[in-house]
Amino acid sequence: MGKTITAIANITETTFKEENFEVADLNPFEVYIKIKACGVCHTDLYKLANKSDVVAGHESVGEVLETGSLVKHLKVGDIVGFGYLKWACLDCEECSSGNEIMCPERVRFPTGLGGFAHHAVFDSRFCYKVPKSIEPKYAGPLMCAGATVFSALYNYKVSPTHRVGIVGIGGLGHLALQFAKAWGCHVVAISTNSSKTEEAKSFGAHEFWNSKEFTDEKISKLDKLDFIINTVSGDLPWDQYFSLLKPNGTFVLVGVTEKPMTFNGGAFIGDQLKFAGSLVASRHVSNKMLQFAARHNIKPQIEEYPMTAEGTAQAVQRVHDNKARYRAVLIAPE
Amino acid sequence: MGKTITAIANITETTFKEENFEVADLNPFEVYIKIKACGVCHTDLYKLANKSDVVAGHESVGEVLETGSLVKHLKVGDIVGFGYLKWACLDCEECSSGNEIMCPERVRFPTGLGGFAHHAVFDSRFCYKVPKSIEPKYAGPLMCAGATVFSALYNYKVSPTHRVGIVGIGGLGHLALQFAKAWGCHVVAISTNSSKTEEAKSFGAHEFWNSKEFTDEKISKLDKLDFIINTVSGDLPWDQYFSLLKPNGTFVLVGVTEKPMTFNGGAFIGDQLKFAGSLVASRHVSNKMLQFAARHNIKPQIEEYPMTAEGTAQAVQRVHDNKARYRAVLIAPE
Repeated sequence: MGKTITAIANITETTFKEENFEVADLNPFEVYIKIKACGVCHTDLYKLANKSDVVAGHESVGEVLETGSLVKHLKVGDIVGFGYLKWACLDCEECSSGNEIMCPERVRFPTGLGGFAHHAVFDSRFCYKVPKSIEPKYAGPLMCAGATVFSALYNYKVSPTHRVGIVGIGGLGHLALQFAKAWGCHVVAISTNSSKTEEAKSFGAHEFWNSKEFTDEKISKLDKLDFIINTVSGDLPWDQYFSLLKPNGTFVLVGVTEKPMTFNGGAFIGDQLKFAGSLVASRHVSNKMLQFAARHNIKPQIEEYPMTAEGTAQAVQRVHDNKARYRAVLIAPE
Repeated sequence: MGKTITAIANITETTFKEENFEVADLNPFEVYIKIKACGVCHTDLYKLANKSDVVAGHESVGEVLETGSLVKHLKVGDIVGFGYLKWACLDCEECSSGNEIMCPERVRFPTGLGGFAHHAVFDSRFCYKVPKSIEPKYAGPLMCAGATVFSALYNYKVSPTHRVGIVGIGGLGHLALQFAKAWGCHVVAISTNSSKTEEAKSFGAHEFWNSKEFTDEKISKLDKLDFIINTVSGDLPWDQYFSLLKPNGTFVLVGVTEKPMTFNGGAFIGDQLKFAGSLVASRHVSNKMLQFAARHNIKPQIEEYPMTAEGTAQAVQRVHDNKARYRAVLIAPE
């Protein structure tokens, strides 16, 4: 009974080995999946840090090999994306209102085995069919990075008439530029690195603002923004960034910040500003994201590494060094 | 030409004298008003502090005595509320989308002569007809305190199915309890002062939470809130207050805080929380507020003081000492 899954477990944060893990046989809702690709996200590094023998990866895409007895919407041969949200009760107030990502009993990455592996057993109800026009290696990073920035636009009801700023041009940011452009918005890339200007424009930015050059006077002359998605992890001069917003504007945090945030609340009253956090996506939002990405040919710019111990080590090191342009993806052998 | 307005100007922050001010004759949009009542708000104290010979007051209600040549919706004898928003361009993007309170050219209190006066000249387009069922002395505090808490409910689209917390049971808070109750919500009063429990319930609270008794363990057992309006001016243990929110919950700041706010941004991502500031109301929201207050018989609990130098001094001192229960109102002689 059960299955043996060969996965890429870590030895240290950035060194890896192939290892076998025994897992129980499929429960009625689960599917057994041959993993084809898995993106490497900064969040994976948290799982790998200070632990060993864990399997990271939550931007997984694979082919369904077996289905449990109660699986309804998937069949053998389907290509599915999965990984961050592993389970939710599907009965509580949050779940029954389409908000499974906020289920109080939710099970999320980094729990359990991740997608740096050759196979996975996953609850079918949290697997999303990948449209045929999206190659698995491109679908991987959509499952967390893509879903995160898409759900910010979707949940906060950004209008195509809005001026939208994307802070940070990395794994999340370069997808956010594409989604915001396809959303119909005027898009501003905001970064400390002017060398990314042309690339940011190729992803969809109409303008590039170098945040190193911000001064109060310069900001006062800018045509301000209705909506900002901050993809940068870490502390920022918050008052300055909030001053980029128009009245009634919204600043959404998707990058984790460990330091407490400090800012002037008075400006929030005078200009009726909003600050909000946004996590990855619930199921219906993940599905809409994939359909939207397919319709608009949105795909991450990726670096490919083989799904081996060595390939994983190289990819994780790139992410660790903030060098991936713009997402490292592990690719399974054919 | 012009008019002479007798007003209650200040000598110090809390001492007053009657004084005459010359004002220009009505422009085509203005009305000349006999003031009948004016609420005293904490914001008035900012105008009075460190200055003299100023006239505070922005919760004014009075009777129209004269109308300028282009005044359309008001006629002599109408009872109108007015005071905080004095002028907006009515042409810009904000104004033309019903958001005059955010007009970049807006003129707000504390500019110019206020409502601690026997008469006023005011732009008719920023005067709101008071429904007949609301006595002028009760309409006064609705014009700022009432409009502020109403617009938070209205602009942030609070649902009657929401659990709403009101932090601080004072001038704004005791009206917020009434509006939230009439809005159909489950209402929780949150205060450091348990002696206000019964009164808070009489205003509409279904529950009273003493915030002095908050501990992480106690909070973890509470049935949390979808929406919180914080009417308290000053610093709070923000992380603790934000932890009162359900996932996707919204915390709205209407009380001014001078100190920078500091809190953990990570919790905002994990629970997808929102933090927002809200100012007083735009014109259509002020009108809806008055109609809503009339329909639901919402009125402030007031202390009455005569519209004289001495009466004003007493009323301002009460507000200064945080003793008004719950709004001090200056009443003009008949």
